[in-house]
Order: sequence, then C-alpha cells, then structure tokens
Amino acid sequence: MPPDPKQNRLKARLPRGLGDRRAGEIAATRRMLATIRGVFELYGFEPVETPAIEYTDALGKFLPDQDRPNEGVFSFQDEDEQWLSLRYDLTAPLARYVAENFDALPKPYRSYREGWVFRNEKPGPGRFRQFMQFDADTVGSGSPAADAEMCMMAADTMEALGIPRGSYVIKVNNRKVLDGVMEETGVFSQGKRIETFRAIDKFDRLGADGVRLLLGSGRKDESGDFTKGAGLTDRQIEHIFKVLFVTSDELTTMLDVYGRVNRHLHPGFTDLFDISEFCRQAGYGPDRVKIDLSVVRGLEYYTGPVYEADLTFEIKDEKGNPVRFGSVGGGGRYDGLIGRFRAEQVPATGFSIGVSRLQAALTHLGKLDGEVQTGPVVVTVFDRDRIADYQRMVQRLRQANIRAELYLGSGKMGPQMKYADKRAAPCVIIQGGDEKARGEVQIKDLIEGAKAASAIASHQEWREARPAQFAVAEDKLVEAVREVLARHGLGKAVPQR
Amino acid sequence: MPPDPKQNRLKARLPRGLGDRRAGEIAATRRMLATIRGVFELYGFEPVETPAIEYTDALGKFLPDQDRPNEGVFSFQDEDEQWLSLRYDLTAPLARYVAENFDALPKPYRSYREGWVFRNEKPGPGRFRQFMQFDADTVGSGSPAADAEMCMMAADTMEALGIPRGSYVIKVNNRKVLDGVMEETGVFSQGKRIETFRAIDKFDRLGADGVRLLLGSGRKDESGDFTKGAGLTDRQIEHIFKVLFVTSDELTTMLDVYGRVNRHLHPGFTDLFDISEFCRQAGYGPDRVKIDLSVVRGLEYYTGPVYEADLTFEIKDEKGNPVRFGSVGGGGRYDGLIGRFRAEQVPATGFSIGVSRLQAALTHLGKLDGEVQTGPVVVTVFDRDRIADYQRMVQRLRQANIRAELYLGSGKMGPQMKYADKRAAPCVIIQGGDEKARGEVQIKDLIEGAKAASAIASHQEWREARPAQFAVAEDKLVEAVREVLARHGLGKAVPQR
Repeated sequence: MPPDPKQNRLKARLPRGLGDRRAGEIAATRRMLATIRGVFELYGFEPVETPAIEYTDALGKFLPDQDRPNEGVFSFQDEDEQWLSLRYDLTAPLARYVAENFDALPKPYRSYREGWVFRNEKPGPGRFRQFMQFDADTVGSGSPAADAEMCMMAADTMEALGIPRGSYVIKVNNRKVLDGVMEETGVFSQGKRIETFRAIDKFDRLGADGVRLLLGSGRKDESGDFTKGAGLTDRQIEHIFKVLFVTSDELTTMLDVYGRVNRHLHPGFTDLFDISEFCRQAGYGPDRVKIDLSVVRGLEYYTGPVYEADLTFEIKDEKGNPVRFGSVGGGGRYDGLIGRFRAEQVPATGFSIGVSRLQAALTHLGKLDGEVQTGPVVVTVFDRDRIADYQRMVQRLRQANIRAELYLGSGKMGPQMKYADKRAAPCVIIQGGDEKARGEVQIKDLIEGAKAASAIASHQEWREARPAQFAVAEDKLVEAVREVLARHGLGKAVPQR
Repeated sequence: MPPDPKQNRLKARLPRGLGDRRAGEIAATRRMLATIRGVFELYGFEPVETPAIEYTDALGKFLPDQDRPNEGVFSFQDEDEQWLSLRYDLTAPLARYVAENFDALPKPYRSYREGWVFRNEKPGPGRFRQFMQFDADTVGSGSPAADAEMCMMAADTMEALGIPRGSYVIKVNNRKVLDGVMEETGVFSQGKRIETFRAIDKFDRLGADGVRLLLGSGRKDESGDFTKGAGLTDRQIEHIFKVLFVTSDELTTMLDVYGRVNRHLHPGFTDLFDISEFCRQAGYGPDRVKIDLSVVRGLEYYTGPVYEADLTFEIKDEKGNPVRFGSVGGGGRYDGLIGRFRAEQVPATGFSIGVSRLQAALTHLGKLDGEVQTGPVVVTVFDRDRIADYQRMVQRLRQANIRAELYLGSGKMGPQMKYADKRAAPCVIIQGGDEKARGEVQIKDLIEGAKAASAIASHQEWREARPAQFAVAEDKLVEAVREVLARHGLGKAVPQR
C-alpha cells in the first residue's frame, strides 16, 4: 500500500546499544572466528550450539523471592505464560545443556561455542545490548590441569590471531585466595565481599584512587552518577591494597609467606601454584601466564581459579590519554552451576572471549586488514532493449568464476559509471550499437583509469585519451577480463567456493 | 553454594520449538553456508548484518489500532518502555537498514545476510520458534531482470550444494496475475484474497481436496482443529482451479489466451514473461526456472513477482507415504516495504533460503557427509603425580598441529580407554613407570585395534596379542603419531587454521 504523505512516516532507526555490521567488518570477524576455532579444535574441543532463548529459571535469572525475572535480561512470556529470556552469556545455557544430556556426553566434556548474547542494560560507549562471545569449557574435571589448559589455550589463541608475545598476558587468580584475603581483612558477609570484588575488578579502568573510593564511601563518576561504596574502613582498604596490588617483584615472596601462614585457611593457593607450574612446565612462563592477585572477574558463580586475557599495549582513551587496552576475555571455575540441575556437583571451568572487543584490538594492531576487497565486474546497460544480451555476458563471467553483475538500475551511462565506482568494480563492460555491429565489447579498466586520470590535466585530454579502455571481440570477453584482473593482482577477487 | 537435596531441583530443559545443535550438524551447516556465500558473492552480492532486536514498529508488527505488538513475535519493553521485538525474518530489518542508510548505499543495492529469526508460534513437527534464514536482496531496481537474477541465483545455489538438475525447480508467479484471477473470479476484498492465497499456498501439503475445503466452508485437520474457509462458492473454486492448477502442457496456451484477453487488467503477465525469457536466454530453461500460477508465498508484503525453490524428489512422510520434499526457500518483490520509512517508493526483490530445511534435504541426499570426523589424540594419565609430563606431550603434539588432549578426569586406565573411544580418538598415548624408565611411550592405535578386536575370538587372546599397540622412544612421539594418522588417511583430521 502506498505511503500516505499526510500520515507520519516511521523513522528508520535502531534501538540504542545495537548495531549493524557491514562487509569489511563481517569478513574480518569470519577470519578471526576461523582462527579461534582452529586453536580450540587443536586442543580437542568440539562445537556445540544452544538457542538464544531459554527458560528464565534455567538461566538462574529469577529475582529471589519475586515472581519476575531480573531486569538485566530481556524476558517475555510464552503462550503458556512461562517466562523465557534471551541468554546473557554462553555459560548458563551450557550448564543447562550438559545437565540435560549428562549421560550421553563424554566426561570430561570439552566444548566450544560462539554466538550472540543479550543484556538489558543501559548502553554506553563500548557497551552493547547485543554482542558476540566465543567460549570454551571443560565440564567434569576438577583438576587444576583443566584450568591450566584454558590459560595455555587463551595464550595460543592470542598468538594465532597475531598478537605478539609480550603484548598480551593471561592473568590467573583464585577466588578462594580472594576469600582468604577477605577473611583476614575482616570482610565476612557474602554481599560485602561481592561489592569489594566488583570494586577491585575496576582497577584497570579507574586506577587505585577510584578503587579506594569504591571500597570506602563511594564514588561519583564524571556524569555525576554516584556509586555507593563497599563501606570498608581505611585500614581494611590498605590491607587489601597491600596484598592484592603487589608488584611482580614482591609477588613471589608475598605468596610464599602468605601461603605458608594461611595454607590451612586458603587451599586455593595450592591450585594457583599448580596451574602456574603446569603452564610453566609446558613452556608457558610468566611472560604469558602469570599469577595476579587483583584479578577478580565480575561473575558471582566462580568458585575457584579465575583468569583474564589482558592486552598490555596502550591506546588512547576518549580524552587522548594513553591507557592499556585491557581485558579481551576471561573465565574461571564454576563448580556450582550445573549442580543446580543435578543431585551431584559437576566441576567445570571455562574461558570466554569478547569477540567485538578483541576485534577492536586486532583492528588497532592492523591484524585484520587482509586482502583488498574488490567489487564485481559491472556489465552496463547501453541499450535497454538488449538486457537479455548483457545478462548473458554476466552469466559467462560468472561461469568462469568471476564476480560479475548486470547494472539493474534505470540510470544512463553516467550514473552507471558512478555506480561501478561505488561498488569498487575493477572494470566495466560496455556494448553499444557500433560495438554490437562489429561483434565487440568495450572493457574499461577502472583501476588503471583512476591512476591515469590523476596524471592527466584536462577533462578534454582525458576524453580523447580514453585511458585504459579497449575493445575486444565479444567471444574473448572472459579472457580479456581475466587479464585486467591479473594486471592488478586480483586473482583473489574471485570468491572461494 | 551446594544444592540443597531437600529443595526441588531445577529441571534442565529447553522450551518447545527450540533445539541444541551438535558438532556434526554444525560442521555441515558451516560447509553449506560457505557454499551459498560463494554463489551469492559471485553474483555481486555483499554481506550485511543487522541485530536480532528491532523496534516493534520498525518491523511493522504493531497490531493495527492497538497499543501492543502482534502475538506472533517475541516482544518486550526496554527501560524507556518502548516496545522491542526479535526479528521474525531478515527482510523487515533490511528494509529498516536501507531506509536508515539510503544515501550512503550504492543503488541498486545487492546484499546478503544469514542469521537466526524468531517466531512466537505454536511449535510442531518441523516448526521451530528459532530457525536460520539466508537471504539475498536487490533494493532499488524495479526491473524484472532483478527478479530473473534471483531465480538464476537460486538455481545455481541448488546445484552448487549438490542438488542435481531435475531434482529442483524454481517456480515463478506474479501477485498481479493472482490479483487478476481474483478479479475475474469475483473475489474483491483484500482480506478474502489473502485467505484465498493462503489456501492455495497449501496445495503441496494438503493436495487439491484440502485446498478446496479451505477455499470453501473450511477444513478440520487430523488433530480435530478446524480452520475457517475463505467462503468461496463452488463455481469460484472451480474457476480458480481451472486457471491456477493447469498442467505444464496446458500452461502455454492458457497463458497466451488469458494474457491476451486480460492484458490490460493484468500487466503482471508482461513481467512474468520477461523473467521467464531473461532466464531462458541466459541458459536457465523451464527445467530449472518455470512459470507456475499456483505459487503464492504466504507473506502479505509481496507486490509483484514471487518465486519458490522447490525440491522435486520424494521422501516418506510420518506415515511412510511418499511426498515431494517441497519448498526450501522463496521470495518475491516487495516494493512497499522500504516506502514505509521514506517519501518515495523503493522497489526491492529478494530471496530467502530456509537453512534448516535445506540442510535436512541435503542430509537426505547424502550431500553433507563430508570427511569422517575424528577426535583428538588422547594422552592418558597413568601416574597422577606426573600430569605435567603428560601435559608436555600434549603440547608437543599440538605444536605439530595434531589435535590432542590430556585426559582431565579422575578415572583409572579403564575409564580413560572408554573416554578415548567415546571421543573417537585415533590413538592414545600411555606412559607408566616402566616406559618412563626406558624413555619410551606406548601408542595404542584405536582404529586398528577395533578392526583387530572384531577378528579375535577371546578376551584372553586379545589381551595377549595387544593388537596395534607399540612402544616408541619418547622423542619420536610426534613422528609415530603422524604415522598412525597417515595409516588411516587422517591427515585431514588436523584442523584448518
């Protein structure tokens, strides 16, 4: 039905925090995902996929003592009035999948998955309501060797993607160690511990002063929003800083002393040292996988080791100040998550890559530039009555595996040339009445033409020279186009089947 | 927190109409999508992606004169109380994208996209609430050459996927022709026409008798559910059958006569013949692209040519009766959809593949079997204190680009062997104290072992023979494993980077 001009037309726009993706970005993501898959498969992980929608209760996202889902997830009721939610990560759905298929799966069960996740949160710069994660998990192993493997795999993934050694580090900690520190510090309630962890987790972004405020009375951000603090005393805050934010040099001594004194209280130390040792012996020294007691990871379900893939090179923030790129992924052990569905506990550990953030890092490093994207050969329409003839030329090119298309618009030759430019066509094919009579086609090499045009002074001179345009017999069309492509090193412009 | 055994545990289950996907199915989908992409790119289409969530009004899914979304889509309100919905196809989001980026895009704009779509409908056999579509669209061309190209591309896609010529057909019709027939038949109201089209659309599934009932007084299905009919008279129904369900032989004559008589009323005939002629001249005769007046396509937004990719081979239905496989995709011209956002109309035509359904067809034809999926080499843990040693062996294999993993469970050798079997490991590595002392490892070839075991009578004989198990020096581990893999033609078991 034709739009009524008197009626208000709809505005074409996306909700905030959601984005469209174009050809270049999509191609870069595809290459990146293939590389990650290659590493994960080399480690014996196999793919599994779950849907975007799950029962809200299976995701653990009902608000306690309330009959409605957490506001942070997108939720809706189905026709039976049951609450469904969009997954907000790939771990909760995996826990559901493993519990549902427990007897059929090999155990330990190594799997990986990539996909979109959704958060119903206030969007902001770099904060999206739909983003892609790429996860690997080992379910059914409580061994620190499983955690060590995740760290090694994360390191290998960074290098396979082209991030040089020294520009990334996999930092490892253990929630049990953090709990030990909390105990020592006199932070006993679970709620206060989580507030404390969340504050520590922001160290990279807010620095020492910001974290001190969040651990204490609270912090007002630049927009004026106030975040309540954890309410610790100054002495508690200083103790936490002394233990967690030690320098690398102090770390070994401190762990040794602290570990010995608290060994009984903090069995997590043993795991932490085991992970570090497994990695070191397999060739992953502290330049790649290192213990860092300030690593927290925000999620509440972690029960033991936690790890984070950190990019150490600097970029400029919005104000032009240099900042470390920071985390592009992380994970940890979540021994309780599958147990919600089953009589026994099922140990599990996993690693999650923030695909969009990692892609931003790789783009910054120039690792995703790849081949030049060239458009298709454009066969122009000189004579509208002869579309079927032009279409046949297109088909001949396609049959020779050359990307090609017929101009489908209604413009004359001028607009057709502009269109070919916009499509980054390497050349266009033209056949008017004269060429037809001679059994020829004109091929116009747009890449050569652009070079020549920049060297020629006047429009008239350009028209007379007709640079990079030549006629060939119609039955030599495919060979001639192949030569033009080869001239510009565009053999690779042909799509891969 | 440990689960409380007295508490009711959560049941791990998926909502109906949603499914998990495993390694084999995922690998097959990946290969299939790569093939489709190859064809679409050869035709000059380029990828674009939109998010899963859109404003409900941008999708055109507000109920008329009501303040709430159509029940067929999953909808929810954001923090500003605006209605959002999960996309139910890939066409409405493309219309939004084109309208939003109109000036920046080349026109005509050829693009393709693949992704999950969501329907809040009663799930049933073969009816899912989340499924994947793969679409191509040409926006900004009203030329029948654009529709013809879609049909040729659909045919090429079927053949690139391995469906032999003769086992598929691309059927073309025109909504304007259907409208002409409705006018002739005396079906004037838009509502009644849509009911009539929907009934005709079910011809493949319900046959002539079922469609007659739906065009007339209504039809009770096998579950006892009653669908109201379009309420046409017997004479009207017979006229529709005479025109739309003609045999191929009668078609040409009928079109000729009917077209001449009604040329003024039905300009759609001209387009239909043009499309058919463009295809024929480019080498796509009626064995591949043919006119079929009974093709309707359910969607209300089509305004001109409609087309459908139909698989003509037979499969067995639930009762074991032979039925044609039927439609795996389709599309048509939707000149009004982008105009909802803009002052001017923007012509557009597109084709959508039902990926899951096409995958079912290809699986049935045995076209997705691909290479045998082999699991990783499993390095067993004979001596728990020496995990770091075993881990080093795994790393050596991985560095040689051989899929390998350490057994991470807590079982002894028996369970470890069962695990390796379940993972389809080509071989396992064992190193006990004796081997360690000799600087050796044992390699057990599980594929050879399985062959030998089936040829050996007794368990004792098998134990004594220790078929396909041999020792090599530890530093020859990688070479020996390579030999085992090569012995079974498993060079391809190595993942592609």
